[in-house]
Parts: sequence; C-alpha cells; structure tokens
Amino acid sequence: MNKDLLVRNLRNVPDYPIPGIQFKDVTTLFKNNECMQEMRKALYEYYKDKGITKVVGIESRGFVMGAILAADLGAGFVMARKPGKLPAETRRAVYNKEYGKDSIEIHTDAISEGDVVLIHDDLLATGGSMNAVYKLCEGFKPARIYINFLIELRMEGLHGREQLAGKDLMTLIELTK
Amino acid sequence: MNKDLLVRNLRNVPDYPIPGIQFKDVTTLFKNNECMQEMRKALYEYYKDKGITKVVGIESRGFVMGAILAADLGAGFVMARKPGKLPAETRRAVYNKEYGKDSIEIHTDAISEGDVVLIHDDLLATGGSMNAVYKLCEGFKPARIYINFLIELRMEGLHGREQLAGKDLMTLIELTK
Repeated sequence: MNKDLLVRNLRNVPDYPIPGIQFKDVTTLFKNNECMQEMRKALYEYYKDKGITKVVGIESRGFVMGAILAADLGAGFVMARKPGKLPAETRRAVYNKEYGKDSIEIHTDAISEGDVVLIHDDLLATGGSMNAVYKLCEGFKPARIYINFLIELRMEGLHGREQLAGKDLMTLIELTK
Repeated sequence: MNKDLLVRNLRNVPDYPIPGIQFKDVTTLFKNNECMQEMRKALYEYYKDKGITKVVGIESRGFVMGAILAADLGAGFVMARKPGKLPAETRRAVYNKEYGKDSIEIHTDAISEGDVVLIHDDLLATGGSMNAVYKLCEGFKPARIYINFLIELRMEGLHGREQLAGKDLMTLIELTK
C-alpha cells in the first residue's frame, strides 16, 4: 500500500472540534479515487480469506469504506448508529466519553449467531466507541470478530491500541502527530 | 434487476418516526449481501458509461450504496452532511421541511468545475434534501449532474418526482404503499 499517497492526501484541520486538537479529516481520502482504491485494495487483500460474513460500520464515516469492503468481500453491511436513528428493534451499548456518556445501537436482527464480523471505523483515538460496538457484537455470539481502522492516532494521552488489547486489530496508517 | 428480491427484503416499520408513517427501512437490504449486489450491479450498469467523476452521498444512509458505486465507477466519494459535521470550510444550503427548516453542507473543495456528479440517497419522499444538495452542487459548475435513489415513494401527499422535474433522475424501485 502506498502510505505516502494517503498521508499526503489526508487533511489536518487544526483546532477542530476544540482548540488544541489536530483533526484528521478522511473526507479528502474519500473524494480522491486513487486514495480510495489504495485503501480498498489493502483492506480486501488483508481480509479476503477470513470468511467475513458481516461488516459493521460505525456512524458515520465508518459507513464509507465499510460498505465498499462489505461489497468486495461478499458480506452484508450493518450500520452501528447513534441512539434513535435505527427504526426497528435494537440492542444498545453505553460508553464513557471524555465528558459524559454516549451510546450506540445495532438492529437486533442485524447479526446472526456464527457470523464472522468485521467492525470498521475511520479513526482510532481512544477506542471508546469501538469497544462499545465490540461488546454489542459479542452479544450476538458470532464465530469471530475482527476490528479495523483506516487511521490509528498514537499521540500523548491517547491509548486506543491499549484499550483494544487482545482484540484482532488492523489499522492501515499510524500517525504520531 | 430482481425487484421482487429487493421488495421482499425491504423492511416496513409501521408508525415510524411518527404515527401513520410506514417507514421503509433499507438496512435490511444492506445487511443482505444478495440484495446489496443486486442494487450494486443495477446502479453500475446504468451509470458506468456516463463519465461520472464524483458521487455525492446524502447523510447518512446515502453513504452506503453511494460509496460502493463511487468505488465501482472509479469516482471520488463526497459526503453531504448535516451542519457542523464537516471539519473544513463548507458551502451550505437551507431547505424547508414539513416543520421548520434544515440545512446541508458540502466541503468547499469537494467538487471541481467540470466534474460529472451523481447525487445519491436511499429514499425519495418529498425531494427536499435532494433539491438542496443539487443546488449546492450546481454552485461548483460541474459539467453535468445525475440524481439517484434506491427507492421512490409514490404515495398520496408525496410529490418527490414532481419536485425534481427536469433533473436527470433514476430510481431502482417505485413503491405505492
């Protein structure tokens, strides 16, 4: 995979959403077809022989490459969404954020026992929402769960990889600043 | 395209989000790989020779098949999002909803002059958000704009197709109830 191409095209937005944060904006990778195909190929090559039957994308930047990967792998695509956004019966997990709590939902019939699940999101920072979705998915008794991020932030104060210790994690790009 | 397969797998959620509404839940099509591939193939066949360079997906169910279609067509993928969700400089359009107003944004550098744009969403009801995104896209001076929905609702009180008159519209499935 051409990491330089991706790193070069990833936009850094200073002081977003709050002062001091260097926000990594993946929309500049999505809008550039060359970057998208690079990520697509790398994800497909890594996951093609793992028997994945469901890809779960985390709202909402995780829907983009998550859906493409599901289509390429011949798997179903499942949306993990903020509370109240899914119309039918759901299971919900609550997790801690820096300030207060948040929660995330999956439709009760979205995953079946024995599914091989890949959970995908764009960016690993604290790992909070991924851990919540992971717990939700475990409740469906899948055969196995893989997790993936396009970008992993390894900066002071962020311990995403540690928070996800013991899980089957792959990230395409690691950034230290 | 196997319309029966899609119609059979589309979930109807009665009285969502408010009493009297029969909500069409496309998540049951996304999670079923056979349905997803059926839609994917039909969209690709229809759009493959149109020279599309950017697919714009409307938040957030439009991100799923929109991203897959962009990947298949070799186009870039652009997110049209609710206000405040995109981190860099945006253009915004305001539109009327049944009760009050809403608005939608696209990054200022997401579309270039001369792009051939396809705007995609899951469901055509009133056409309000699509018209707003269309107006936004026109401002970028693209060579051409196509619009697409997975499902078109043709029910009493909904005039989506009329609201989009004169635009290059294709929908995969029309429902009258």
